[in-house]
Amino acid sequence: MKLSQKIEKCELSPIRKFYPYVVEAQKRGIKIHFLNIGQPDIKTPPVYFDAISDFRQEVLEYMPSPGIPELIEAIRTYYHRLGVAFDSGDIMVTTGGSEALLMAMLCILDEGEEVIVPEPFYPNYATFIRSAGGRICPIHTKPEEGYRYASREQVEPLINDRTRAILITNPGNPTGTILTPQELRLMADIAKEHDLFLICDEVYREFIYDGGELTTAASFRDVDENLILIDSVSKRFSACGARIGALISRNKALMEAATKIAQARLSVATLDQIGAAALYTVEPSYFNATREEYQRRRDVCYRKLKEIPGVVTTEPKGAFYTMAKLPVDSAEKFQMFLLKEFEDNGETVVFSPGEGFYATPGAGVDEIRIAYVRCVEELERALELLRMAIERYNNK
Amino acid sequence: MKLSQKIEKCELSPIRKFYPYVVEAQKRGIKIHFLNIGQPDIKTPPVYFDAISDFRQEVLEYMPSPGIPELIEAIRTYYHRLGVAFDSGDIMVTTGGSEALLMAMLCILDEGEEVIVPEPFYPNYATFIRSAGGRICPIHTKPEEGYRYASREQVEPLINDRTRAILITNPGNPTGTILTPQELRLMADIAKEHDLFLICDEVYREFIYDGGELTTAASFRDVDENLILIDSVSKRFSACGARIGALISRNKALMEAATKIAQARLSVATLDQIGAAALYTVEPSYFNATREEYQRRRDVCYRKLKEIPGVVTTEPKGAFYTMAKLPVDSAEKFQMFLLKEFEDNGETVVFSPGEGFYATPGAGVDEIRIAYVRCVEELERALELLRMAIERYNNK
Repeated sequence: MKLSQKIEKCELSPIRKFYPYVVEAQKRGIKIHFLNIGQPDIKTPPVYFDAISDFRQEVLEYMPSPGIPELIEAIRTYYHRLGVAFDSGDIMVTTGGSEALLMAMLCILDEGEEVIVPEPFYPNYATFIRSAGGRICPIHTKPEEGYRYASREQVEPLINDRTRAILITNPGNPTGTILTPQELRLMADIAKEHDLFLICDEVYREFIYDGGELTTAASFRDVDENLILIDSVSKRFSACGARIGALISRNKALMEAATKIAQARLSVATLDQIGAAALYTVEPSYFNATREEYQRRRDVCYRKLKEIPGVVTTEPKGAFYTMAKLPVDSAEKFQMFLLKEFEDNGETVVFSPGEGFYATPGAGVDEIRIAYVRCVEELERALELLRMAIERYNNK
Repeated sequence: MKLSQKIEKCELSPIRKFYPYVVEAQKRGIKIHFLNIGQPDIKTPPVYFDAISDFRQEVLEYMPSPGIPELIEAIRTYYHRLGVAFDSGDIMVTTGGSEALLMAMLCILDEGEEVIVPEPFYPNYATFIRSAGGRICPIHTKPEEGYRYASREQVEPLINDRTRAILITNPGNPTGTILTPQELRLMADIAKEHDLFLICDEVYREFIYDGGELTTAASFRDVDENLILIDSVSKRFSACGARIGALISRNKALMEAATKIAQARLSVATLDQIGAAALYTVEPSYFNATREEYQRRRDVCYRKLKEIPGVVTTEPKGAFYTMAKLPVDSAEKFQMFLLKEFEDNGETVVFSPGEGFYATPGAGVDEIRIAYVRCVEELERALELLRMAIERYNNK
């Protein structure tokens, strides 16, 4: 039975690819330090569960397709506090940021059309773009240059007749880079001048270190027609399992197009919307505590990586990921070595090999992504294991 | 800003199109009997809410992409009781039957490829097919022939190089028809002979009247490679707001393709999966009571429709919908009349005009879909209003 060409172009998650070897190593009694998945260990605010246990309906009905008014209002208020005004019609609740991304791609891409994405990128972007029939046109960036991409020289040569959008993650996953206000402005200018959508995935908005402040693209009111914002409660409130996100845009035609899909899928799960609305009532101190904890982890991660001879990395400024170029021939081979041969005191470590974060063939083979979502003590040990393993791998 | 051609070909829900006029009529104090939306009034089994209020996690994490093992096992056991064996790898939990449908279309359709669908059909099928770049190729059926479609003469002439699948709903929404075992076998034969996917949407499986029994396509083991089953807890347990469905197939390549999308969207909401697993523990008596109640409603609905001079309809045998051809020039104009001019004792009625259920231009203009999801007394009154309104509309 023939499957679609577009799905054949998609890949299984590179982050989950080593799972069978993880299971085997665990069977051998090896303790594994997981630096591969962006699943925070920060506690979900209990208001989520409180709101849901108080909620009963005789009939668990469909909710309105764009989301329940309480949640839309909660999101609107959250943005209002950031100094950004949205009408309720600009906000559509989605099943995670994931659904918002897929909806956006289905609304703007026909077969063979392109989205410009700085690489390394969040690998699931590729699946959403390709399953909508589109292609990724990567802005290639380098570890030696801190993975920076926001310049006319890097972006404009990639624009052609088939280009429909630029997709950026800010703060960046997997690089941890943050655009300066000038860089973000430039990306908006380029999108505007070339009539492209600017899709800004800002789900890590609260995770900015060293006192930095994020400029949200939503504050540029001259790109209302171009901007599509991807949002989510997953990381903001450590509520990944709620699967509540949002597609946000002031472009009315785009929102009407997305409504066609939203109506077809009827509604987002009722209870999760109730819980998510409650999450938006947490005190700002929640974000501060989380940010401080991640900054400590970032510091450990960066310090320990710098101590490993031959590693190229840049201090991440936001999100909770970092890329690092390792002094190994292949990060995938090295990962297999970690899972099949290496151990120190019965422990080993896994990360995400870099190749899956690139669209350019051959790029990222000696890079890895680390998610620093574990406590400081575990990170210290995990990165110590990484150092030892690199040495042993290269002396084989 | 240019949107995708594929989204331009999609439409807003024809079922929700008259909503602004409904609101206006309500503002004028008119009581509206809703026969337009398939939202059952049957109580959701409280085990759903019980299971969820007992559940707390410190960190609300992502769940496995194919679904939580408890729910997959519950679905497997449910099918086992129907005499159908599935491996756990054949079942993927999805965000409603809706996500299962969209995933299936993305996995099998490239631009311009076709899905054969008997019309009238569930209008959201059109959105899922078109947003995947595909086209609906309708098997045209007629009210005078009870909307039957399962014959070689009707189906085979529609198959061409671009045909990828046949999509059927059994029991049928919007027609209430049920395929005989021989008819279902024939559809399976046709799919097999022509190497097509057979997508069977069996979400109304429990809603069969007059002692009838449904043959599930999953019992034909010679079409394992062709069959994709769409399933959902929405109607089965009156839990539409849970948004829990399933994509089920023994075709391993198809399931791996769907896994690419499932991994990209990470997971289905945790709490709803916990609740849905609990729903599968309800006693079979729950289904019997529900079936009896719907059969009473079906009886009222059919009897009252037959009493209206000039109406063409067929006794529905399953699901909770019926189509009816009215003696009016246009069901849409008539609906506007109902909402803007007609009232009896301060009451009126709405249904879904038939046109949105057809792909053939001009088809269904004098037809309507009725969802008999209201109690017997309300249905009596609503259909009485329909009779009076037709008379008054034609004497204008």
